[in-house]
Amino acid sequence: MADPVTSTPSPAHQKKKRVLLIGGGSVGTIAALNLEKGGMAEVGMVLRGNYQSVKEKGYWVESCDFGELRGFKPTDVLNAVPDIKKEGLNPYDYIVLATKNTPDIPPSLTELVAPALPPDNTHTTLVLIQNGLNIEKPFQAAFPNTIVLSGVSLIGSAEPEPGHIVQDDSDRLLIAPFPLSDSSPALETRAQTLAQDFVTIYAASGKTTCTHSPAVLRDRWRKLVYNATLNPICALTGLDTGRLRLAPGLRAGLVEPAMREVISAARACGVELASEAEGEDEIVRKTVEMDPLEIYLAPSMLADVRKGNYVEVENLVGEVVRAGREAGVEMRVLGSVYELVKAIQWRTMEARGLVGVPKSKGDSGDGV
Amino acid sequence: MADPVTSTPSPAHQKKKRVLLIGGGSVGTIAALNLEKGGMAEVGMVLRGNYQSVKEKGYWVESCDFGELRGFKPTDVLNAVPDIKKEGLNPYDYIVLATKNTPDIPPSLTELVAPALPPDNTHTTLVLIQNGLNIEKPFQAAFPNTIVLSGVSLIGSAEPEPGHIVQDDSDRLLIAPFPLSDSSPALETRAQTLAQDFVTIYAASGKTTCTHSPAVLRDRWRKLVYNATLNPICALTGLDTGRLRLAPGLRAGLVEPAMREVISAARACGVELASEAEGEDEIVRKTVEMDPLEIYLAPSMLADVRKGNYVEVENLVGEVVRAGREAGVEMRVLGSVYELVKAIQWRTMEARGLVGVPKSKGDSGDGV
Repeated sequence: MADPVTSTPSPAHQKKKRVLLIGGGSVGTIAALNLEKGGMAEVGMVLRGNYQSVKEKGYWVESCDFGELRGFKPTDVLNAVPDIKKEGLNPYDYIVLATKNTPDIPPSLTELVAPALPPDNTHTTLVLIQNGLNIEKPFQAAFPNTIVLSGVSLIGSAEPEPGHIVQDDSDRLLIAPFPLSDSSPALETRAQTLAQDFVTIYAASGKTTCTHSPAVLRDRWRKLVYNATLNPICALTGLDTGRLRLAPGLRAGLVEPAMREVISAARACGVELASEAEGEDEIVRKTVEMDPLEIYLAPSMLADVRKGNYVEVENLVGEVVRAGREAGVEMRVLGSVYELVKAIQWRTMEARGLVGVPKSKGDSGDGV
Repeated sequence: MADPVTSTPSPAHQKKKRVLLIGGGSVGTIAALNLEKGGMAEVGMVLRGNYQSVKEKGYWVESCDFGELRGFKPTDVLNAVPDIKKEGLNPYDYIVLATKNTPDIPPSLTELVAPALPPDNTHTTLVLIQNGLNIEKPFQAAFPNTIVLSGVSLIGSAEPEPGHIVQDDSDRLLIAPFPLSDSSPALETRAQTLAQDFVTIYAASGKTTCTHSPAVLRDRWRKLVYNATLNPICALTGLDTGRLRLAPGLRAGLVEPAMREVISAARACGVELASEAEGEDEIVRKTVEMDPLEIYLAPSMLADVRKGNYVEVENLVGEVVRAGREAGVEMRVLGSVYELVKAIQWRTMEARGLVGVPKSKGDSGDGV
């Protein structure tokens, strides 16, 4: 018989959950705030670019949910994923990934996470608060006994400078287990329980709308209507989402057809985005007009291209194209957009020394 | 009865033809050299960016056809198209256009040329040494009695700095009348005679291969297999034609399908590019591999995007897409490429103040 104290704990008596949070950008930081402020978790955060700044001064957070905070630090500020065996640490209860996800760029996220997981892990639950399709697959392949939760974040936030987080649209986080590779009823139940537990500790702050959403796959696809289209088209043209609507012909000639392909791909994969209340035309219109025109918002992929950063082309575009095609959708527009953005990714890889090209045999001139 | 002296002139006795040449880049300058050195024409050249330099010092030409020339000047160096009525000039025999052709950017070429043409012109022949499809149409509409000749230049040349012309691949110029709107036999004969005459005065230098080519429309389409595909794809991805071949998947996934669409569009428009000697696969292969990989050549559209210049998107891509679609070809890949490059053109138009956007209502931040 289960111990009643641990099986139905009340927050006050429960031992705090140990969470490792990888990725201290704006999404990760608001997650850390919710988890720490709720009092049910202690968070070790793995930072990269802003490590030094946060280690010394903590975060400066301007948040529509939490107000202004100066010097916020989670329980631990780490500059690398801990090797729990070497460091003699107990396994974490949750490892939350809130980094970008670029499986085409080494190291892979599974390699990154591995040292923090026990061998043949069944204890630690992975939570991917990341965009895109099929992002769970590499984790399920590498760690077959590990429960992986899907987190779809609908936050509006940014990190204008290292350690300075601005959140201007409230945090809404949708959580559910990814479909399991081995879907035995027992495992299914355990996965749903873990999802609910994570929601409980995340929502305990009372500042967020964190929901255990059985429709999380639909939410993921819904977000892709924006992310698979506006993101790469802005990156390719250099236009923000406002100018994208102003440029003659672009909306009707490219953006809307691309969005319809995402909706068709979802449908062919068994996820119906349209409803009686919101038909396909309405989804397309709302998605194009999601950002107010005159804020001239640069979606992440355009911002990343401008900074010379890698872009999430495989999860946001490539997987959608592949999923659609496997399900019999032609993906005419998005297929070309994908090839073009992949080429930009390769150019960034070359600029960063990840791939090389043969030595030049002549001056690079201008041609016909 | 025709005057035998003017109807069958020999070069030595013939009065020199008066040629107005608009556009003093590398193609125009080599044309001016051929026309002047042949002794059968005197050339007035209209220059823009390099006017001051050429007016003062003449051209510095390094040419595989002419050797090195310092201080070359045509008969007249002009900084604007002359208004023949105001200036009391006789009509030109030929007006050669060797500028870029961007009908989407004002002023139009017909507006540019108009002051140099007599009213209801029948005397002056227009010669368009420019790339792209349907470039004759605006001239035929604006000047219905004017013969317009098609010039397809296969030169390899560049202007690395104003007034410095480097020609490293010999000049081959193909000339024929554009199809006439009123194709009466008499007009047809006159157009062919004028084309032959132009070839005679252009080829008189003996340094060029200028040919009266009845297949010039085919030559034009053949050049578009390169220009409608490599040009915009390089512009969109930032890759030169060498890196385009090295980037994984791009050649098979985008470049070759785009080229096949151009070949299909040509075929649907009655121009068969493939032959028994050179099948479609071979055309595609040769076109992809036309530039030696390791010279990493930036095609004109990429070079122009890098410089913030306008690109010839309408004649090189837009007209091909429209012609293909009107003839029943879907133009799946090139249709998307076209929309994307048009958006880049619009961005350049905004940067140059040609179009405006509503005032910003917030900071342009980074989004999802």
